[in-house]
Formats: sequence, structure tokens, C-alpha cells
Amino acid sequence: MIAEILSTGEEIRRGTIIDSNTAHIAEKLETLGVHVARHISVGDDVEELVSIFNETGNRADIAIVTGGLGPTQDDLTAEAAAKAADDELVLDTPSLEAIKRFFEERRRPMAPSNKKQAMLPSRSECLYNPMGTAPGFRLKIGRCEFFFLPGVPAEMRNMLDEAVLPRIIRLRKDENLFFLNKTLTLFGLTESETGERLSELEEKYPDIQVGIRFRFPIIRATLYVKGPDESVLKEMLASASDFVLNLLGKRVISVEGHSMEAEVGRLLQQKQATIGVAESCTGGLISHWLTNVPGSSNYFIFSGITYSNHAKIDVLGVDSGIIEQYGAVHEETAKLMAEGVRRISGASYGLSTSGIAGPDGGTSDKPVGTICIGLATPDGSSGKRYQFHYPERIRNKKIFAMTALNVLRRELLK
Amino acid sequence: MIAEILSTGEEIRRGTIIDSNTAHIAEKLETLGVHVARHISVGDDVEELVSIFNETGNRADIAIVTGGLGPTQDDLTAEAAAKAADDELVLDTPSLEAIKRFFEERRRPMAPSNKKQAMLPSRSECLYNPMGTAPGFRLKIGRCEFFFLPGVPAEMRNMLDEAVLPRIIRLRKDENLFFLNKTLTLFGLTESETGERLSELEEKYPDIQVGIRFRFPIIRATLYVKGPDESVLKEMLASASDFVLNLLGKRVISVEGHSMEAEVGRLLQQKQATIGVAESCTGGLISHWLTNVPGSSNYFIFSGITYSNHAKIDVLGVDSGIIEQYGAVHEETAKLMAEGVRRISGASYGLSTSGIAGPDGGTSDKPVGTICIGLATPDGSSGKRYQFHYPERIRNKKIFAMTALNVLRRELLK
Repeated sequence: MIAEILSTGEEIRRGTIIDSNTAHIAEKLETLGVHVARHISVGDDVEELVSIFNETGNRADIAIVTGGLGPTQDDLTAEAAAKAADDELVLDTPSLEAIKRFFEERRRPMAPSNKKQAMLPSRSECLYNPMGTAPGFRLKIGRCEFFFLPGVPAEMRNMLDEAVLPRIIRLRKDENLFFLNKTLTLFGLTESETGERLSELEEKYPDIQVGIRFRFPIIRATLYVKGPDESVLKEMLASASDFVLNLLGKRVISVEGHSMEAEVGRLLQQKQATIGVAESCTGGLISHWLTNVPGSSNYFIFSGITYSNHAKIDVLGVDSGIIEQYGAVHEETAKLMAEGVRRISGASYGLSTSGIAGPDGGTSDKPVGTICIGLATPDGSSGKRYQFHYPERIRNKKIFAMTALNVLRRELLK
Repeated sequence: MIAEILSTGEEIRRGTIIDSNTAHIAEKLETLGVHVARHISVGDDVEELVSIFNETGNRADIAIVTGGLGPTQDDLTAEAAAKAADDELVLDTPSLEAIKRFFEERRRPMAPSNKKQAMLPSRSECLYNPMGTAPGFRLKIGRCEFFFLPGVPAEMRNMLDEAVLPRIIRLRKDENLFFLNKTLTLFGLTESETGERLSELEEKYPDIQVGIRFRFPIIRATLYVKGPDESVLKEMLASASDFVLNLLGKRVISVEGHSMEAEVGRLLQQKQATIGVAESCTGGLISHWLTNVPGSSNYFIFSGITYSNHAKIDVLGVDSGIIEQYGAVHEETAKLMAEGVRRISGASYGLSTSGIAGPDGGTSDKPVGTICIGLATPDGSSGKRYQFHYPERIRNKKIFAMTALNVLRRELLK
């Protein structure tokens, strides 16, 4: 079974955004054993869309198309699909009702242009979109089954899993195989180091395919297996996951694919502990990540973003003599910040950062990329310095914040 | 002049890596006024490569191909290019010397397989790669000029700028057109509302093409023009940008494409003012955004993430009686939080949030999506309630934080 993946939209064509949908879809299809032959991206141009749909319709068995289902005049995918299939657009009443309901539930007025989104090719099967206004649809063009999905990543991913992949599995009904996977989250290795280390896994488990995805600074390694016996596959994945844990130790954040912040939250709750944070150079990112986890109010008490020295001294009670002696970016200052925030919040743990995210503010002694992390626990406190080498401010904030959370995670694992 | 961009490699085809080269190349070509018609990605398969090179060779004037020039057996691009052009691979002696020099300079042994990288189609022009071992090359296939580049992003980008773009500029010497664009950032409209409102712009300025990009909750509207007279284009963009300002008023964050946080920072600096923030439900996101802007330490003083009531009372000095009387999520509490953080930070402005981001914690009186925003200024303070209807915690945090920054921005514009 041969598939092609098509992404549409002027921003993708012009390169103002990077298309991440296609890689996601390709990985899912390959996992199902569907061979992805090509990806094609094209702008919002009806003629170009029609000719691409026809070409793909003659070449592939399956095509997944993202984008161009919105309410604006640029959104031409449904029109082009109808033309390519020699069909016409008609109002799909259930889709219109779903769109109306979507706006009612959110107490927002429905714009007249949203009605356009319920116009689907007459021979198509509608694919319901629970998260947005644009329904998707399935339509045969040439010899190929096309699935049209919105370009908004969250909506696309949901519909791919819920509506498209089950239909593709039915289309290849002759193959009675199970496809399982398991994702591990990792921190502290580069992408190529991860690849090299995990080559041992691939030697030991030749039936497992490993996909490594880097979303700075976290690596997600997904193990894929397929076969006729589901319980054998489950055992194989569990055994391989243990093998990775042995190989990489505490660099594995979670064998359940949890994020760092979710894992830190889980460990805090397990210990019935709470956390207070004092951030300087990370500017609120640690707190933002921690509070992204639902239920984090059970353990996250308070954070002070103390950018100025004055705030470090007045709010956190850091000894001004220490800042004068060592500077704001120093292990000793970080330690006092962690102690200070632990004290004023009353939390069991205090975590702090003070560093230089850049692009300015570096010195030969403390260049951009220097970060001091303080940790205060019920048993004592400490401060430690790390040096990174990224030129970009946002990358530095991310690696600083993730390293600080990792310091806390490793403490909680003790 | 029509271009296509082709990327090759098994990892891209399977979706284990996201291809970021193509967007980079597309943006560069579009800026030069070269229309990028399609992007195509394909794996390491000679037959598939040959047929794609021939298709593109019949359709486009320019093609840029990345990947597949390495020393391994999977690297098949040069072989496929020669086949498609009915040419043959020959040893390019200067390339071989350059590869040898590359290894000598790095004091590393040259593997025999690296010699393969100096085998180029006989009619091709070699493109020197100063950063790696794989030379690129230029070759005509069909009616199209192909440029073949390595897939390593740093090498590709360097060669694109140094070797490819200058050649493309010479190829289009007859076309003496300018291509300009201008981006406006907007807040407070949905994507479809923006499209409808801006349709007036497209009527009044038929030569301007408008691209609307939604990155929740901010909209970026880019106006594109082309023509032979650069100063006419500049005037047209300035006039159209004024037209949008008149049409949408304070919903326009910036006519220079600045982000909300950069614009707030610019306005604070213009007033020589400073900011302190007290965040509850936004959990640090306002502070994170504000401190993403380089130089924000000039105006960002302190932020307190006061998740617990205890922290609101102890750190910010909010009257516990008010919290008891009205609750933590209330206009009055938000106002006192803003006053408190303004006082303890010594900043000119205090901004606060208290609300319910969900998924839990909503009541019939204060459902998920309720947000109270407090603002304390040198002239007084106030608190206001807003109601949003998103079910997702992260979306709520984003719309809450952006609305709070917008309250501050509108105050600073007074």
C-alpha cells in the first residue's frame, strides 16, 4: 500500500512556516506498514491543487492532505478536490450543525464565512472534527483514497488518530497485524549520541524500529513493533524499555512518555512535597512549565521572578553582601535564592536559577550560557554552575529551565 | 521564474526528522521574487529520484535539491541526476583535492568511501562546499537548472547564499522586479473575522496580496507587493498599513510585525517606565514572554507567581479579608495583587491575573475560562473580569496572559 502526503497553504509554500504535520503523518503511516512514497507541498492555487490531486490519484493508494479547509477565500482545498474528482460541492447539513454547535458552546457568534466549511464534495464521507470548525472528508480521486484534514496541528492529529488511521487499517483488512509503540522521554544526550547509544537496542531487538524525535532540549524515542500476536508485542516492548532504562539510567525521564514537568509533579506528589521557585534568567519559564500540568496547584506554591538584585534581596532575603562579593550569577547567590524561596513559600523544596541567557551581559569569566542552579531541600541546600554554548536567548532559557527541573527530578529520585 | 524544492532522504520520507531546509530555501527564493511552486520530499530510491527529476525538469525553471550527496551507499542523488540528464558520473579532480584537503586540515584520515563524493555528472558545474566533504553541483535536466546541495543545514545554507543565489540572480537578469512585504500583528479578532475585515483592504488595493497566519492568540497579516518601481511599492505598503490601522484601530499591535511582548517593552521604555507582575492562573507565562525580549531587564523588575492564597497574602500583602469575602478569583483581589506587586517591586506599573485555567476548578459562578486582570498605574488601579470559553488549560493560559499584556499595552497607549 503506497501513500503520499500533501500539505497545502501559502505560508508553507513560501517557507514562512515549517510544515511539521507531514512528518507526524509519515511516522504514523510507516508504523502501520504503509509505505510513504512522497511528500508534496503546494500553495493555495486551485489549478495547481487539482493537477497535484490528479497526479497523486494516479500514483498512490492512499493520500492524506492537510490545510486549506478554513473559512477564508484562500481555503480552496475542498473546491479543488471536487474538481479533481469531477464532483461538486454541496452543503453537508450535519457538518453545518456541528459548526453551529461549536460556536454556541463557546458563546461566540458564527461568522457567515464559516458556513463555507460545511460545503463538501457530494460523494465524500465527512470526517468529524471535535476540536475545531473545519470538518475533514474522505474522497476517491482516480484510484486513490484521499483523506482531507485541517492544517491546525492539534485538530489534524486528533482526526488522524480517531478517523483516518482506523479507516486505513480497514482498507488494508487483509493484513491481520497489530502495531504497537512505546515512547520514552530522555534528557541529557544529543540526537546523534542517542542514535549511537540506541543502536545497541536495535541489535538486540531486530524486530523493533526506533524513531528518535528531538524537540529541544528533550528527546522522544519511540519503539515500534508489529506482528500477529499482541501479547508478544507488549512483552517485547516492556523488555526493550527495561533495556533502555539500564542503558541510559537517569537520562530516561519517563518510560511512559511523560514530559519533565509532569514527571517532576508526579514525584513531588508521591512524596507529598511542595515546590517554590526563584527564577532570574529563566524569567518564569520553569513556573510556566510546572503550571502547565493540570493539578499542579497541589504542589506548586509560589515563584518569584527576581530579575533585579533589589528583588533578590528584598523579596527573597538574599544577603546583599553575598551579591556584592560574588555577583548575582554565582553558586552561592543561587543557593541563597533557593533557601529564600523555600522559606517564604513554606514549600518542602526551593529551586532557583541565576545566569546569563544573552545575547548581551556575558563576560570572559561568566559568558552567555552560564547558569547557576540552587536547590534547597528539607536536608540542606547547594548551588552548582553549568556552562552551555548556545548563542540564542530562548534556547538558553529552555536549556537552563530544563536543567534546573532535572536537578530537582534527580533529587526527588534519591 | 518558477522553482521547485526537492528534499531527499529516508529520515525525511519516514517522518523521523522534520525537514527544515525546504522552508529556509523557499523563503530565500520568494524574497528574490522566484515563485516556489512546489516542495517534494522523497526517500533514497534511484528510480523514484530519476522520475521526480524528470517531472520537475519539465515543469520548473529552477530546482534546488538537498540531501543524498554523502559517502554512504544510501547517497544516490548524483547517480540519479546523471541518469535523469542522460549523463554519466566522472571523477572531478578539483573536488577530490578539496575533499583530501578537508581531512588533512582536520588531521583525520579520509575514508575510501569519501572518494565517491567527487564523482559528479560530466556536464555539471561543481559547487564548492567550504564546510564539509560533499561538493554540490549544478546540472540542466530538461528545461530546468538544478542545484544539488548537501542536506546538512549549515553546509546547505552557506552554499545557498554563496553559490546558488548569486547564480539564480544572474539567470533572471531580464526580470527587473522588486518584491516587498510588510507584516502587521493583531490581537482580538478570530482568523475568519480578520479575513472578512481585511477583504476591504484587498478591494481597495487589488495589487496587494494578503497572507493571514494565526498563531494562537496572535494574528500576523502580511501584505505582499511586486512591481518595477521600489518607491511606489513602499508608498503602497505604507498607505495600506495606514488603512488597516484605521480599520482595526488598537487591535493592531504593531505595523512593524512586533510581538505583543516586544511592543509592551517598547512602550514601557518610551515612557521610561518599569513593570512588576503578579500571576496566579497564568503561572509565569506573562513573565516568560516579557523576558523573552532581549534587554527586558531594563524594564522588567519582578514577578510573583502566587498560586496559593497564602502567597498572595504574605508576599503581595493582599488583604486576607478581601480573599475571604470575594474569593481569589475576583476583580477586587486582582486589583489588590496589582497594587501589591507594584508596591513591593517599586515598578511604575503592576499587572496581575487571577482566574481558572481548568480543566478543573470551575464553578457555575466562575467557570473555567474566567480571568480577572488587575492593573495598578501611577494614577490609580482597577480590576476587570473576562470570560473565555476554551476547554484546554494551555489555551486558557495563553489567552489570559495575552489579554493581560493587552490591558497594559492599551493603558500605555493612552
